[in-house]
Amino acid sequence: MALKSKLLLVALLLSVLFLSVYVASATQDPDLKKEEEKEFQGRQQEDQNPYFFEDEHFETRVQTEEGRFQLLQKFTERSDLLRAIENYRIGFLDTKPHAFVAPSHFDADTVLFVFQGRPAVTIVRGEKRESHNLERGDLFRIPAGTPVYMVNRDENEKLFIVEFMKPVSVPGEYEAFYAAGGENPESFFKAFSPQVLQAALKTEMNKLERLFGQQRQGSITRASEEQIKKLSQQHGQGGGSEGFWPFHGGQSSSDAFNLFSKHPSQANKFGSLFEADFNDFKQLQDLDLLVSFANITQGAMVGPYFNSRATKISFVLDGEGYFEMASPHVSSTGRQEQQPQQQKSSPWYQKISGNLRRGAVFCAPAGHPMTAIASRNSNLQIICFEVNAHDNIRVPLAGKKNVVSQFDREAKELAFNVPAREVDRIFNNQDDEFFFEGPNEQPEHGRAYA
Amino acid sequence: MALKSKLLLVALLLSVLFLSVYVASATQDPDLKKEEEKEFQGRQQEDQNPYFFEDEHFETRVQTEEGRFQLLQKFTERSDLLRAIENYRIGFLDTKPHAFVAPSHFDADTVLFVFQGRPAVTIVRGEKRESHNLERGDLFRIPAGTPVYMVNRDENEKLFIVEFMKPVSVPGEYEAFYAAGGENPESFFKAFSPQVLQAALKTEMNKLERLFGQQRQGSITRASEEQIKKLSQQHGQGGGSEGFWPFHGGQSSSDAFNLFSKHPSQANKFGSLFEADFNDFKQLQDLDLLVSFANITQGAMVGPYFNSRATKISFVLDGEGYFEMASPHVSSTGRQEQQPQQQKSSPWYQKISGNLRRGAVFCAPAGHPMTAIASRNSNLQIICFEVNAHDNIRVPLAGKKNVVSQFDREAKELAFNVPAREVDRIFNNQDDEFFFEGPNEQPEHGRAYA
Amino acid sequence: MALKSKLLLVALLLSVLFLSVYVASATQDPDLKKEEEKEFQGRQQEDQNPYFFEDEHFETRVQTEEGRFQLLQKFTERSDLLRAIENYRIGFLDTKPHAFVAPSHFDADTVLFVFQGRPAVTIVRGEKRESHNLERGDLFRIPAGTPVYMVNRDENEKLFIVEFMKPVSVPGEYEAFYAAGGENPESFFKAFSPQVLQAALKTEMNKLERLFGQQRQGSITRASEEQIKKLSQQHGQGGGSEGFWPFHGGQSSSDAFNLFSKHPSQANKFGSLFEADFNDFKQLQDLDLLVSFANITQGAMVGPYFNSRATKISFVLDGEGYFEMASPHVSSTGRQEQQPQQQKSSPWYQKISGNLRRGAVFCAPAGHPMTAIASRNSNLQIICFEVNAHDNIRVPLAGKKNVVSQFDREAKELAFNVPAREVDRIFNNQDDEFFFEGPNEQPEHGRAYA
Repeated sequence: MALKSKLLLVALLLSVLFLSVYVASATQDPDLKKEEEKEFQGRQQEDQNPYFFEDEHFETRVQTEEGRFQLLQKFTERSDLLRAIENYRIGFLDTKPHAFVAPSHFDADTVLFVFQGRPAVTIVRGEKRESHNLERGDLFRIPAGTPVYMVNRDENEKLFIVEFMKPVSVPGEYEAFYAAGGENPESFFKAFSPQVLQAALKTEMNKLERLFGQQRQGSITRASEEQIKKLSQQHGQGGGSEGFWPFHGGQSSSDAFNLFSKHPSQANKFGSLFEADFNDFKQLQDLDLLVSFANITQGAMVGPYFNSRATKISFVLDGEGYFEMASPHVSSTGRQEQQPQQQKSSPWYQKISGNLRRGAVFCAPAGHPMTAIASRNSNLQIICFEVNAHDNIRVPLAGKKNVVSQFDREAKELAFNVPAREVDRIFNNQDDEFFFEGPNEQPEHGRAYA
Repeated sequence: MALKSKLLLVALLLSVLFLSVYVASATQDPDLKKEEEKEFQGRQQEDQNPYFFEDEHFETRVQTEEGRFQLLQKFTERSDLLRAIENYRIGFLDTKPHAFVAPSHFDADTVLFVFQGRPAVTIVRGEKRESHNLERGDLFRIPAGTPVYMVNRDENEKLFIVEFMKPVSVPGEYEAFYAAGGENPESFFKAFSPQVLQAALKTEMNKLERLFGQQRQGSITRASEEQIKKLSQQHGQGGGSEGFWPFHGGQSSSDAFNLFSKHPSQANKFGSLFEADFNDFKQLQDLDLLVSFANITQGAMVGPYFNSRATKISFVLDGEGYFEMASPHVSSTGRQEQQPQQQKSSPWYQKISGNLRRGAVFCAPAGHPMTAIASRNSNLQIICFEVNAHDNIRVPLAGKKNVVSQFDREAKELAFNVPAREVDRIFNNQDDEFFFEGPNEQPEHGRAYA
Repeated sequence: MALKSKLLLVALLLSVLFLSVYVASATQDPDLKKEEEKEFQGRQQEDQNPYFFEDEHFETRVQTEEGRFQLLQKFTERSDLLRAIENYRIGFLDTKPHAFVAPSHFDADTVLFVFQGRPAVTIVRGEKRESHNLERGDLFRIPAGTPVYMVNRDENEKLFIVEFMKPVSVPGEYEAFYAAGGENPESFFKAFSPQVLQAALKTEMNKLERLFGQQRQGSITRASEEQIKKLSQQHGQGGGSEGFWPFHGGQSSSDAFNLFSKHPSQANKFGSLFEADFNDFKQLQDLDLLVSFANITQGAMVGPYFNSRATKISFVLDGEGYFEMASPHVSSTGRQEQQPQQQKSSPWYQKISGNLRRGAVFCAPAGHPMTAIASRNSNLQIICFEVNAHDNIRVPLAGKKNVVSQFDREAKELAFNVPAREVDRIFNNQDDEFFFEGPNEQPEHGRAYA
């Protein structure tokens, strides 16, 4: 028995020793660890869809009784595949009627699009204060570091504004700086020492404490009718266009541009596309940005097509539907390490897809073919921000002017290994352009040809 | 006893086993490790002040009997929050009278500011050699890759030059390439094989060895009076301005610009500000740079104000004082993960502060409100490099033209939740502009309203 | 014996315990681990030569019976020292006579250089199809996102094209999108759901399956003589220059530029250099690119010289030889942590070198002195892509116009600590310019003065 127990002990000890050595080696081999992490990330990327964002990817930056501001996570927090748009952010402001958004400035250039409500936006540039009464469809730029406040002039309708931002300080990071306020937000003045504030403002501390301690309702509050009336009286130059969508009305100033004031660049019974580039709204030029609004008729679809240079960030404003995109990057890590034989059996282009509803965001990098389909129940309305827009060309892959039908007869034969007329028969069959009648049934998710 | 010892052994074994398993699990769970690291970094960031640099953050690149060149660490080595200025470096050259700085070229564009001494700077561009006699207050640009050498013409005064660099090769990395020299520095010629050098220079190796082996005093040596006289004879076009500060004198050539040759953009009894943008000195244009010199009277202060787009890097040249800045980024990681209730009690803006003395560097990113205060003993003299300067606006938060006093009456009421006249009473009380009388007592460090 | 065995057991247990604790501490100290990793990376960098690439650094992207496309790994995958050129890629296309390269578009701007063969390149821009018959020496730009296909018109000669790419989507990542094809590559159309494709192309699925299932020979196939004849009939504007190197013949269109159509910028019996900047070929302008072709006579050498701003990426087309470069960055990490005394004994500039043969790639960052030497057996032919080319100056370090001979007499004395005439005697000895007679014997590898 003593021998047995001793043998057992030695066996146990040996296994503990072995385990310890194993642990030690696993700990000390950095390459091994890296391999594991890489594989982990690899799997993550293949499982996920880094081009698609939903509710859970937004962060609540402001939330009060009267409204909220939601900001999408940093694109590169999701995936390195979005590095091309690392220094852009997108979010939305959603308030009740007659809400007032407190004065602040941002460390980002902002382009806002008014989808709902009638905001009066006031900015202070140098010694000049300008007020702009905006309408549905208006684009407006707030330069970085410009103090701004706004009020929803409408007493019945909510305010819904999509904001697209390009940070100027820390790439991809975006912060608001509130001058006024007591709690949530505090004023940035409160970060300074009392002695400094007293000297700068030539005012005793107890008065300053009172001033910065009264506002406890947060940065989105409710304005009275009288206050709204006063705040809507435009001063300075400018003022947005007035008009009711879809009948584009007003003259647009140089400070705002109404997307619906221009003829749609594409329109048929399946949808319409309104676009503004820097020729329309010169404040888009240094941001290298194009903004477009697509209204896809219920049951219809747009594309497939791709952008030659631009990366497109789409925000769903209304309706339901889904999108599909072909991406070589998602599976590329895997592919590159495979042998030629294996290459043949694995897909070159991964299908990226997602269900679209209000607040969903999807990104289409340059060169990536994509399509979006409206459900049979409602029109799908999307606002799109295209960065790297200069010299971009939209390349259609179906319908009139599709690129395949333009290949030489011989190129068609060699590329498809069928007679050219067979290629033509298929690629010339669709008579419409850009917007098409959608599929009869919703495609199941997952890959078609797997 | 045998049983007891066996029980003890089993207990011991079990605990070892448990420990091993624990270690193994801690090792193999990458998420757990990441969480810990994150928290660690989070804590680090909150403890530190990534916007402030002192002596220990400089690296000695050159040190000889006659002088030294100190280079500040890479900004992003300190914190990712400084990514906006990742590709800029700052340093200073500090030599005795009559010092000669050996020929070299850099893989960076350099803008230098002469604070003390009278350097003769010679650059070789193509087949042209140009010599420039510079004075206190002169800005001078050395394009990347341009061979340059200089001598301090002054026989009594030290040379003190601040250098601001934008690397053109590896982002944020900056190296000097010495053509001549034997030890500390070696010549870059010595990296080539003897056979290659012999062929290229058509010279036997023993002669080359002699040539590259004589200079043993390093790259900053002492020149004779005769040598200085010769090196100060200007050739080529150009030559800096001559003038004695604060009485700006000379005509500036296109190659150099004297900061004090222009009227100050701000001046009162509390301080003065001299600025040069690309209209003054066109060589700042492609660097998107503005350079300014602030002289804050003892006991006075500048700001608070913020820059709308530019990030400002300030180098203290003389005097003592302190600065304060409000930053939402430092604490933002923490804030975002907190619940709304907790948000209310935590500060939104962290106070960033530091004691200023010669050689201290502090950075103010775009949008960040900041102030600097001179001690009661001496004027505080600061040279500032503002990057991303194009379209930048300085927004004052106190004194004449402060932004809060420009808000609409209704915005003041809604933002502060007090009658507008109460806001006006405080924000209109300070009559001065930009420079103000400072606080009576030095603020204690740490946060005021915590 | 029982006591002995118990003592043994306790000793064993204690050592296991000690080991476990050691492992635990090693695991839980993140700083320690980081230090180790850093050191590891440091050592790696010093061992390696991150500026030099050979066969094993290329990845096979396409390989069929008729040809292949090889792509060099991402520069930053090799070393962070190549971050300046992170967003550039280089590769080559190598096909048999009469090969056809299937239609595709890339998420990168591409500049191609024809070294061998006579390709007919067809691109589709908007609604226009353009065909260009290119020759040896032609440069041609394919804008990002432009569908392109090509055929080697020559029935005897192989096609050899070097491609230099600047990705527009994910920095440094480059993918091809094939419209047609069945297997290896698949068509990107196949990533879409059948329902979506059917609706977009208004065609039943069985027909689509047939269309996208016939091409099984991959993306490089063989064209018939008839097909080549048709594909070579130029349409659209443009068409490359026709001419036989080295007798530059033809007129170049705005779409292509023949490097050999210009007089060489440097030429003597030791070599010649042909250069194209954006004045010659305006499509290089927005890429900030200069392309040059160096033909170094057997046994001769080029340089040493350095570029003031540009980083040069060289691809060896033919011949054999070697290169040397002086780099302060490779050893800089080590140097910075050393004490001043130690600095003196360690080399400032590391010799970077490598043997050159067809397909070798080497990079010379801005400011880095370099030289290349042709073997005694054959001319060395190199195509170079210089990025950040604007305002770049080539600075010669030997021969006519070398920079050292231009220093002031006094600067020579002070820098080398020898009489100026001794400096002149050496630096004025070489009468040739840029290309020189090479060394008599091949230098041994490793550092000369160690």
